[in-house]
Amino acid sequence: MMKIFGHKNPDTDTITSAIVLAELQNALGNAATAYRLGNLNKETAFVLDYFQVEAPDLLTEVTEDDTVILVDHNEFAQSVPGIEKATPYMVVDHHRVSGFNSAEPLFFRAEPVGCTATVLYKMYTENKVEIKPSIAGLMASAIVSDTLLFKSPTCTEQDQEVCLKLAQIANIDIESYGLELLKAGTDLSDLSVAELLRIDAKVFTMNGISVEVAQISTVDIGSVMERQGDIEVVINNIITEKSLDLFICVITDVMNSNSQAIVLGNRTDLVETAFATTLENNSAFLPGVVSRKKQIVPPLEKASI
Amino acid sequence: MMKIFGHKNPDTDTITSAIVLAELQNALGNAATAYRLGNLNKETAFVLDYFQVEAPDLLTEVTEDDTVILVDHNEFAQSVPGIEKATPYMVVDHHRVSGFNSAEPLFFRAEPVGCTATVLYKMYTENKVEIKPSIAGLMASAIVSDTLLFKSPTCTEQDQEVCLKLAQIANIDIESYGLELLKAGTDLSDLSVAELLRIDAKVFTMNGISVEVAQISTVDIGSVMERQGDIEVVINNIITEKSLDLFICVITDVMNSNSQAIVLGNRTDLVETAFATTLENNSAFLPGVVSRKKQIVPPLEKASI
Repeated sequence: MMKIFGHKNPDTDTITSAIVLAELQNALGNAATAYRLGNLNKETAFVLDYFQVEAPDLLTEVTEDDTVILVDHNEFAQSVPGIEKATPYMVVDHHRVSGFNSAEPLFFRAEPVGCTATVLYKMYTENKVEIKPSIAGLMASAIVSDTLLFKSPTCTEQDQEVCLKLAQIANIDIESYGLELLKAGTDLSDLSVAELLRIDAKVFTMNGISVEVAQISTVDIGSVMERQGDIEVVINNIITEKSLDLFICVITDVMNSNSQAIVLGNRTDLVETAFATTLENNSAFLPGVVSRKKQIVPPLEKASI
Repeated sequence: MMKIFGHKNPDTDTITSAIVLAELQNALGNAATAYRLGNLNKETAFVLDYFQVEAPDLLTEVTEDDTVILVDHNEFAQSVPGIEKATPYMVVDHHRVSGFNSAEPLFFRAEPVGCTATVLYKMYTENKVEIKPSIAGLMASAIVSDTLLFKSPTCTEQDQEVCLKLAQIANIDIESYGLELLKAGTDLSDLSVAELLRIDAKVFTMNGISVEVAQISTVDIGSVMERQGDIEVVINNIITEKSLDLFICVITDVMNSNSQAIVLGNRTDLVETAFATTLENNSAFLPGVVSRKKQIVPPLEKASI
């Protein structure tokens, strides 16, 4: 039985893609089970509840006896503990390829699109497997989530086209459903600062420099920045604990497509170089920046050389 | 203009895949040119001559201004000098994924099949682009070469099916053409020992251990082993020059599917462990072993842990 999972700090694309690909593999006769590497965020909980799909079980580690499929990530640093010992059977992703290693040939399918679900849609089509309405609903939700309802610069024409086809199969109005979904994800009221910083955080190694980029989606940057003092305390603890060189917390206004960053560590100069800005009170406004993958990681990577 | 190329020490799959994918990309409106990273071997020269296709130009390095497509390899150690500075647009491969790194998302298509041409065939089909007879001939040749006319353990049902379809388009009898092709590749009579060892050699990094695996295809192992003394002199020079820990030269009888290995370096113990054998006079017979990818690299990788 193969184990399928997305990245740590799971988001909607990572959770739904594991479920969607498990469904496809099982339809093709390859026994597979979807797992999650952490707690569901509110947006994903909303999606699973809406389409009445059960959440996958938690997976805390894999061993040399496991055959695995990685979705929505490929970097071992973002994956499950033990990943370097397992046998990868397949990767389906839409991120940069880095820090991945397999001893033997495997299926590796990555495309520079906005969402893993868009690649999975092609795989269903190529394998001539029908997409059930609830599965289509999960896939459409992933695209809405990753592209901020087509407004992110990561969104391609293909993502939008595929999402509209899936919405039809799922029988949802994508505009009204999409806004409801995005709003469900920005309800931060009952989260502690530590929880806020874990919602969507990824660690990257850039030319030997260890960087964590946490992103918090909101409709009101100000209400998050009110907690800046507490946020900095927690970030400094994480930096010590993980021996990070840099932590950048990006608070993104999903309606107006801007971000405010809180930046700490001994390499904050990388952020100043990458965005041609000067930090004031450990913070900077990043106009038009909403995509970690397209607008934050590449300039940081360049600055780190 | 994108640059498309296969691995160093090019073989038939690497050269033809660059040509075949350039043809597909140009048909899709993406300007692309095929290159080679070294001299054609006799088998590939036979194939290009048979189908009257020109050899690609030599490429000696790439820079940060280059957008590139890698075929039939993904490990930077097997690629063109400067590869880590270029922007990869796409990878199409059928090997393990290792030591590859991109700053941004890209197309990455690898499958555990016997030949890159089999993956390229799917890409033509998915993109609904017609395959010309000469291009089909190149692709069928690549499959015959990589699978030793379907006899290698790397050969999958898909490789064979696709090859038969391609042979029909190319209007060749695959059995008689395939034997002619394999025989063309084993004419070693006018090659120096240094040339013999360069025909099909790849460097791998296995858990920090640097290993070169050279393969020589023949119909008469004995006639190659007559030159063992000279071969060892050249191998020892290569080990010093490249600071290798291990060099394994595999002389493969393509008709009877066996190999004789000549092994030198300070980690020859890895070969003894990997194949449960004892070297005599720096050599060992490896019955049934014909595939570097499937039967040599994985056991060495395991032994290196």
